[in-house]
Amino acid sequence: MHRSRVGVLLIDHPPEVSDRATRFWSEVVGVTPDLDEDGVYTSLGRVGSVLFETQQVGEGTESRIHLDVETDEVDSEVKRLQGLGAEIAEVREGYVIMRDPGGLIFCVVPVQSGETFEREATVWS
Amino acid sequence: MHRSRVGVLLIDHPPEVSDRATRFWSEVVGVTPDLDEDGVYTSLGRVGSVLFETQQVGEGTESRIHLDVETDEVDSEVKRLQGLGAEIAEVREGYVIMRDPGGLIFCVVPVQSGETFEREATVWS
Repeated sequence: MHRSRVGVLLIDHPPEVSDRATRFWSEVVGVTPDLDEDGVYTSLGRVGSVLFETQQVGEGTESRIHLDVETDEVDSEVKRLQGLGAEIAEVREGYVIMRDPGGLIFCVVPVQSGETFEREATVWS
Repeated sequence: MHRSRVGVLLIDHPPEVSDRATRFWSEVVGVTPDLDEDGVYTSLGRVGSVLFETQQVGEGTESRIHLDVETDEVDSEVKRLQGLGAEIAEVREGYVIMRDPGGLIFCVVPVQSGETFEREATVWS
């Protein structure tokens, strides 16, 4: 038995537009952006109970939005999602990048939202 | 004075993968998909307080995720977002398609989430 939920909404832009886009989306929702130490992710608070972030992706990567499915058991959730038709794109340290049946990138990551996860995650048996 | 919030999260796929992707995402979150009358949008309930939908887009359109900013005054919100650096991509009947400073598509739409909008929208003056 494990749990998961769609927990994080990320807006990804390459370096040349990342700062402008982060400032833009922070003003769309009216928060002060909070850049993490490594300069890649910026927290824009939450949209409802979903964590809202921007990510600076590599040069040449196209701008996009992607979702993180957060879970208390990454391996079990990856297996469940493979059974539903997703494919593994890349296994990273502690999380897995997957593609939905249309090729869209999303990630399966450990729990990010703390108490919100406890309250809102779905139990899969 | 008007109000807005990020209210809808849409997963867009072209016709050849749309049904499979809709079934996939409905099972990711554990809901029964609810296709609308015109066969374009399918409701997958909510992620937290954000409406979660799939959209069948035109043939040849690349799979993507886009956000709808819902507002009680579309024109005022479009002007606010233009002031923040967004550009109008296309004006449609009742809503506007825009691009963020990195070129990412999003829409400004009338209120979609009813009471949730009343509770969670931000007031702009």
